[in-house]
This record gives sequence, structure tokens and C-alpha cells, in this order.
Amino acid sequence: MTTGVRRRMGVEERRQQLIGVALELFSHRSPDDVSIDEIAAAAGISRPLVYHYFPGKLSLYEAALRRAADDLAERFVEPHEGPLGARLLRVMGRFLAFVDEHGPGFSALMRGGPAVSSVSTGGACSIDTASTTNALIDSVRQAAYDEILKHLGITDPPARLELVVRTWVSLAESTALIWLDGRRIPRAELELQLVHDFAALAAVSAAYDEEMAEVLRGILAAEPADGPFGELISRLVALVPQASADLR
Amino acid sequence: MTTGVRRRMGVEERRQQLIGVALELFSHRSPDDVSIDEIAAAAGISRPLVYHYFPGKLSLYEAALRRAADDLAERFVEPHEGPLGARLLRVMGRFLAFVDEHGPGFSALMRGGPAVSSVSTGGACSIDTASTTNALIDSVRQAAYDEILKHLGITDPPARLELVVRTWVSLAESTALIWLDGRRIPRAELELQLVHDFAALAAVSAAYDEEMAEVLRGILAAEPADGPFGELISRLVALVPQASADLR
Repeated sequence: MTTGVRRRMGVEERRQQLIGVALELFSHRSPDDVSIDEIAAAAGISRPLVYHYFPGKLSLYEAALRRAADDLAERFVEPHEGPLGARLLRVMGRFLAFVDEHGPGFSALMRGGPAVSSVSTGGACSIDTASTTNALIDSVRQAAYDEILKHLGITDPPARLELVVRTWVSLAESTALIWLDGRRIPRAELELQLVHDFAALAAVSAAYDEEMAEVLRGILAAEPADGPFGELISRLVALVPQASADLR
Repeated sequence: MTTGVRRRMGVEERRQQLIGVALELFSHRSPDDVSIDEIAAAAGISRPLVYHYFPGKLSLYEAALRRAADDLAERFVEPHEGPLGARLLRVMGRFLAFVDEHGPGFSALMRGGPAVSSVSTGGACSIDTASTTNALIDSVRQAAYDEILKHLGITDPPARLELVVRTWVSLAESTALIWLDGRRIPRAELELQLVHDFAALAAVSAAYDEEMAEVLRGILAAEPADGPFGELISRLVALVPQASADLR
């Protein structure tokens, strides 16, 4: 019972608190602009005590990144129930909320990572940071890819399906990055657009490959007319005069 | 007249020869695996002479990268004549030929750049390399973006068009990178697919935005039925049963 009394935190608890404080700071400004002093102040402890738990800004940055990566990977998890379009829309909603929360940090990371190691390790090379962060980014991409294949119910994807899913994951990243630069489009619109983009990339591939056509038909068979995919199709049919002309 | 006699090269000529030799080596293996000794041997000069022209592997790598970037940017230049689909198809053909020629080097570069500086600068930080290479990559992306806008005849693009074009440039990159990992899809198929992807991303955006619909109608009005866009549309209409059902 420590009510009213500021008790001492255990080592792991303090580490977790520092990671949370650091992630918050690294999310809102470019990590290069965040100092250990600020992290110490935000955590309410002294600078030397920060160093007691983390050897330097680099290790704290990597720990914060790992937590963010875990958070992001969790957001990809979605029950395997109902039409795919609606599932992807919920995942994209959570993904763009993540991007929104961690904006500047996400940008800095995806644009080649911050130069954080030069500050913290006193001249040692940033190569290990770069490979650590690249490996972490790749693991999140892979988690997203794996989740989507599970939703499609496909364990051994043909090359063209792998390409569609992986390029779509990359498209979601680049869309998020470009959006962050000014946020000139409503977030909800982008969530829907990314789901449509998935259908569009799959359809382009399916137009020239029977195996992909089979995958696409399987997806569309379970889609309601008022779901994201059904609505896109009717809008496109209305939009593109050639489509109707060809049918006449 | 130096026929038959191996004449001495001038400084600039020798530098250009070394850049060419280095680019060739950096293209076929990961730059980290290429040594100055190999570059010297391939150029037919001594190792110290290489250092006479370039202070280290890093500066030679950056010079090679700059030449590759210039080469790539030139491939985006396409006469403003005829339907857009055919123009983009020619550009994508040259882009994927470039990717094919420089495969491993392109992969290493796009996956966060090689750790080349640690080898060449004896422990100095790779941060400057990373920002140099990132700036170079960004300048090529910007050149691609600018060229496409010129082809569309649009100088002040709305946010949604900017997003479509920039994400498509990024999609071309990620498609190329994924393709290089195994080359399991014929290159010519990917060239066409990327052109279709452009139409697909534009169509998705146009389905929900009148300004983009206007842009799309402008593009399609100039497209022949047997061009990349016309063919895609008729294949999609045949593929997606909902599209025809909606029209009935």
C-alpha cells in the first residue's frame, strides 16, 4: 500500500516507463531533436539515472522503436470473420491512427532512420542502428504480409499474389508518408482508398493471370454490394465510359 | 594518333573511367562486397592510383551512384506525343531495364544503402553517406514525379493527384525490388502491369473525387481501345461479374 507516497519503481518498471516517455517524445519530433535531458525531465528523473537504465539515446531509441513495432503489428490482427473489404478497412483505420499518433517519428524512421547514433555513441558508426531499424521495419512488413495471406486463406502464394500483397504493404507506407507531409486529405478517405488500392492492384494482376483471377473471384464472391469493393466497382463502372461501351 | 599505343589518360578521363568500372562492379554485387583492389584491377591501374583520383571507396561509390541516378533520370524523358499509356509503357520498359542492369546494387541502395563508408573511411560515421544517398534517391523520385506531371500537362496538381503520382513512383520502386528477389515474373509483364497500376490508382482516386475524375477522363479520351488502358478496361469488365451486373 503506497497510496499517496511516491514509491520507487523496480528496474523493469522504470525501463518500461522510460521507453514510454521516449516513444512519446520520439513520436512528436524527429528523434534527432530529442535530448536525453528532455527524456529525463519528462520521466521526472535525473539524466545520470536514465543512463543507469539505458547506455545511451541509441539503445533507448531502439527500445522505443521495438515497442512501436509491436504496437503496429498488433493492429494488423483482425478476426477472420465477414467480408475481406471490411476487415482491411478496420486494419487500415488502425494503421493510419498509428501513423497519425507517431507522425514525425514515423517519417524520420521511414526516410532512412534518424542520425541518432552519432549523438549517443560519440562517433561510433550508425551502421548497426541502420541495420537494426531496417530489420525491425522489415519484420513489421513481413507481419503485415503474413496477416493478409492468412485472411486470404492462402499459405503458399503464387509469385503474382506475393507481389500484389507486398507492393500493397509498401503502398500503404508511402501513402502514409506522403499524407503526413501536410495532411491535405482527410484520414478516413485514405483508409478507404488504401482498401480500394488493394482491390485495384489485385484486379490489375488478375486481368492477365488466371490464378490471380481465381483469387479475386474468391474475394469478390464474399463481398456485399455496399462493401468497400462493391461500391468501388459500381462507381468505376459509372465513371469509365469505355467500360459500358465495351459491354454494349 | 595513339593507335596501338596505350596512351596516358587525362585526370577527368581517368576519373570517368573509374566511375564506369566502379558502377559496373557495384551494380553486380552488393557494394559492400566490392573492394578498391578489385576496382583497381578492373581499371588496369594500381590501388594507390585509385586513391589518387578518389579519396576512398565512399567517394567512388557516391560518384558511381550519381552517374546511375543521371542515367535513370534520363530514362524518364519521353516525347510528349501519342497516348499516355504507350508513353508510360516505354518509360517503364527503360526503368526495368535499368533495374535489371544494376540489380544487386539497386537492391542494396534501396534497402537502406550499403555500409560502404565503414570500410572506406576507417570508422567515421555513415550518416553523411546515408543522407547523400537519400538525397540522391529523392532527387530521382522528384524527377520522375515532375516528368509525369508534365506528361499530364498539369503544373499545379491537387493533393489527390500528387498522392497518386508519388505513390505510383514508389510502387514502381517496390515492384522492382520485389521482382529482383528471384525474378519470378517476366520483366515485360511487369512493365505493362506498372502502367496498369498507374491507371488503377488514378481510377480509385477518381471514383471518389470529381477533380480526379476529370483528370482520368482526359487521359482516357486520348487512349486507343488496344492501348494499355483500353485493354485493361475490357479485361476487367470481362473479369468482374459485378461490373456487368450493375450495368444491367
